[in-house]
Parts: sequence; structure tokens; C-alpha cells
Amino acid sequence: MIDVDEIIRIADERKARVVGLQFPEGLKRRGPEIAKAVEDRIGATVIISGDPCYGACDIDDGLLGMVDMLFHFGHSRLIDDDRVVFIEYYHEVDIDAAVRNALPMLGQKVGIVSTVQHVPVIGRIEQLLIEAGRVPVVSRGDSRIAYPGQLLGCNFSAMPAGVDSILYVGSGNFHPMGVQLSTNVPVIAADPFTSEARRVDVEKIMRQRYAAMTRALDAKKWGVIVGMKPGQRRLDLARRIKETAGDAVIISIREITPDRLLSFKVDAYVSTACPRVAIDDAARFSVPVLTPVEFDIVKGLRRWDELAFDEIRGD
Amino acid sequence: MIDVDEIIRIADERKARVVGLQFPEGLKRRGPEIAKAVEDRIGATVIISGDPCYGACDIDDGLLGMVDMLFHFGHSRLIDDDRVVFIEYYHEVDIDAAVRNALPMLGQKVGIVSTVQHVPVIGRIEQLLIEAGRVPVVSRGDSRIAYPGQLLGCNFSAMPAGVDSILYVGSGNFHPMGVQLSTNVPVIAADPFTSEARRVDVEKIMRQRYAAMTRALDAKKWGVIVGMKPGQRRLDLARRIKETAGDAVIISIREITPDRLLSFKVDAYVSTACPRVAIDDAARFSVPVLTPVEFDIVKGLRRWDELAFDEIRGD
Repeated sequence: MIDVDEIIRIADERKARVVGLQFPEGLKRRGPEIAKAVEDRIGATVIISGDPCYGACDIDDGLLGMVDMLFHFGHSRLIDDDRVVFIEYYHEVDIDAAVRNALPMLGQKVGIVSTVQHVPVIGRIEQLLIEAGRVPVVSRGDSRIAYPGQLLGCNFSAMPAGVDSILYVGSGNFHPMGVQLSTNVPVIAADPFTSEARRVDVEKIMRQRYAAMTRALDAKKWGVIVGMKPGQRRLDLARRIKETAGDAVIISIREITPDRLLSFKVDAYVSTACPRVAIDDAARFSVPVLTPVEFDIVKGLRRWDELAFDEIRGD
Repeated sequence: MIDVDEIIRIADERKARVVGLQFPEGLKRRGPEIAKAVEDRIGATVIISGDPCYGACDIDDGLLGMVDMLFHFGHSRLIDDDRVVFIEYYHEVDIDAAVRNALPMLGQKVGIVSTVQHVPVIGRIEQLLIEAGRVPVVSRGDSRIAYPGQLLGCNFSAMPAGVDSILYVGSGNFHPMGVQLSTNVPVIAADPFTSEARRVDVEKIMRQRYAAMTRALDAKKWGVIVGMKPGQRRLDLARRIKETAGDAVIISIREITPDRLLSFKVDAYVSTACPRVAIDDAARFSVPVLTPVEFDIVKGLRRWDELAFDEIRGD
């Protein structure tokens, strides 16, 4: 699935002497074998990033500073830097059964969204919907989105408007919940790995987020987190939040972990970094960690029924 | 103990609009108060680093890229970068009792070493030794060492030669063990916080290290770690180790944690990053993690009785 010859060809063409490789967790074990192939064939020094990697926003800039070029695997282009080459990784899994199981729950005009792993089969999904007498709609996202119909955990800009239902093809719960919170039409998640299809339920996550917001209502001291991952740095937003919060400090963090948050005596945090952190890790944090959207709700700048997932939008 | 007015004066003089603050763990809680003072007095935006910080080698280069200048607290200058201002932090603790308790264990000609927190009292230690009829010796270290007599956890270059005993003034076990492993004369550790003095024992640590080396004797696949902290990057050393190791990959890591090491299927690691990691965290790692010195022993390039702590030396 990873075309090692192509990687060697690119590194050779660029006459790279020191090459970096960066993988998301699930692909890291492929690193040594690819490193060895590059070393053997073009004699370059290869360095594999051993730090966590959660997305295309999460370029290892420290490693980038030590190498001539960096191959970043498993995610689509987000950041324009000539020294970074994105090598996408597609899941070769049959999506037909999952889409067919979704059909009874879909309306007539169906928006299609997915993660980058399934982008190559969006054409096939459209075809299946047409065969079933539906009208598929695929939209282009903003500048952070490489392909039509593609979602990021922090960007739902490719979600089509004017449809009567949305079909999410992929695994996991975070992306479809984010889509469902951004639209009034039903979102149906079809998982190609299990072939299951289900109506996306945001009830539980909303209860959890309202609980976090309620706990933060009395916060006096705030910490405003700026993420250090290159594609997550939102200092201007952090400044704006700090002004609103009053008694607040801006704190930069690379990996947001419970122990790092304990280093400071604050009553609540607002995270302008990856929006997933506040939501997925909520149970591990001892103080409320809100997204900027939730902070606005707590401060009365947005209505409580306007809860949505935080997005990092492009142009 | 921290002169906030002086910090404000420096930031103001440099007309800094965005100021970074970086503290070791024990001082992090002072961050918000200092941030507020700087913001109130000169109107700058202040960002506190929330990531771990273990030494002067551990400059937050991500944050440095976002600010006009960075104040780094609690450590002495190690890296020359005009944008980084080191603000040292001294422990105001009486060392007389600890030194007096050490006297019966000391020889005639006594080398004095300490960590940066106690550097201002080295003169007082010399005086106490002279009063007791001894000859104190204080030496200059290499370019990584800011003060005569100062140790780092990775640099014992200020240890005097030609003495018949060494007096280490400070707390903790790591520094005096490293000194003891680098010399044949007895090392006496005097802890100013408890007033206790003791002969430094390296028996237990040597047993642990020999056990790790023995476990690594059969290793086929090696991971060679390059530390991403700015003052810990030893790529040339990692390259040399990789050549010797044979089947090896170079892996860059910012924070060396057990779970990050599990991402790769290797039999043993050699860490060219902070030497303390391999030693202090040994019990938490599921595979042996050796220092470069220990790797040389395992590979027969150094004798087993030549075990010493790994050092990162300057010029």
C-alpha cells in the first residue's frame, strides 16, 4: 500500500542526504523497513520521528529542522512547505455493504463525506447512491481540505448544504458527531470495516459538554492553551479569548496531557489547539477544558443551543 | 528570589511585543504571576511554556519561534541565542552544617562541585574548608558550563583532577553518582536541605546498568535515539552508533516515554539524548535503553570495568 519505490525516487531526485519519515501511530512499525530501503538504495541518512502524530497539522518541525526533506505518511496535504511530501494511505476495504445498509436511513438528496483514507472510493459511493435512485452531492472544502468530500476532525467545510441527509463513510465516532452537530439534517455513519450503518447520536456527547461548560461557569482563573503543532497554532484566537476571560494566561503546549495541565493553578482551560483533545480526553482532565465555541457559550457570547464542534478553518 | 522588575526591564529595553516564559517543573506555578506583571507593565503578550522542562538544553524551540524573546528560568546559559535570556534561580539555604558534617569523610585536598542552584555559595564552601585546614580546589568546566565548580547531569567537566576527595554540595543522587563513576577518589555528597553528608555509593546503579547491558548483548535490531531538545541533538554520534550496531534505525524523540519506545519493534535502544533518561527511567522501559558508553561496552569497544555516565561535552 505504501509505494516505497516512489519515495526513493522522490528522495533521489531531490538529492536528499538526510531524510525524515513521520507516521501516525498505526503505521509507525512500517518505519524501519522503509528507512532501510531508502538508506540502501540512495545512501541517505534516514531519521524516523518517534513522537506521536495525530494528523497533517502535526508536522514534526523539530525533525524538519534536521533533515533535507520529510515524508509525512497517512494524511493529505495541509501545510505548504516544499520540504514536506505527504504520502497518503488508503484503506483497501469494500464499502458496498456498508453503503447499502445505510440506504434505508438516507433521504433523497444525500451529501457524502469521508476521511482521507476512503477518498478514492467516493466515486463508487456516488455510483451506489445513483443506482439506488438517490442524488449524491459532494462538495469542495476550504483551503485546508485536499479533496472534495474530505473531512478533518477539525474541519467540516466539505459538508454539503441543501441536502436532506448526510452519509459519512468511515470508522470512528468523532467525525460523524462533529458533522451532526453542524447540521440539522440526519447524519448516517457507514463503517466499511464492520459494514454497519447507524444514525449518528450526539445526545451523550452534548450532555458531557454541557456538564463541562456548567463546571466552568464559576471559573475565576483561566488558562488559554495554544497548540505547538504547526497546523494548530491559533495565537490570535487565544489572545481574543484571554481578553474576554479577564484573569487568564496563555500557555503553549505540544502534547496536552493531564499532568501538564496540573502544572498551573487555574480553574478551567480553553484549548485553541486540536479540538479533539478537549472532547476525547475530557474524562482524564481534573479541570474543565473547553473549546473556543464552548467558552463563548459560557461567557454568554453564543447561545447554549448553538453548541458545535470547534473547527480550524482555512480560506 | 526571581527579580520580576529586572525581567520587565529587559523585555522593555528589547521592545518585545510577544514574550515567552519557560520554567522547570518546580517553578511553573510562578508563571501566571510573572506573566501578569509583564503584561501589565509593558503591554506585551506573554506565553508560558506548558511543556516539561528539564534543563538548559531543553529550550522550547517551538515557543521560541512564536515570540520576540524567551526567558528561561532556573538554569544557567548553555546555548547562545540572543533571543533567550537565562534567569538563574538560587536556593537560599544554609550550607554550613552539611559541609561540617562532610568534613570527617574528606581528605586533605578537596575538589568542590555543585549544581547551579548553589553556585553562589561555592566561595563560602571554600572558606569553610580552609578554616578546617583543608585545601579546596575549584575548576572551570568546558564551554557548556557557565560557572567554576558547576555540574550538569550530563557534564562533569568541572570536576577537579589531582585531589584526594570530592565534595558535592546539593540534593539528589544522579549528579554525585555520575561524579563518582568518573573518578577514583571518594565522593562525599552534602545535602544542604537535610544537612546530611554521605559517601556516594554507586554499587546499586552499577548492578542495574550491568543488567541492562547484559540484556542487550543478544539484541539484533537496534533503535538509536536522537533527542529533539535543542541542547541534546547528537546526530553524528547516532550515525556512528548506527554503523556499529548493524541492523539499526535512527529515531528522533522529544520526550522519551515507554509508550513511544513501544511504537517500534526493536530489541534494544541506545539513547544519544539526555543521559539521565536511560538511567532514571530504566525500570519503566520494557527493552534495554543504553547510553552510548554502555553501547560501546556491549559491542566490545570499551572494557566492562570502564563504565561511566554518558556526558555531553562542550569545547
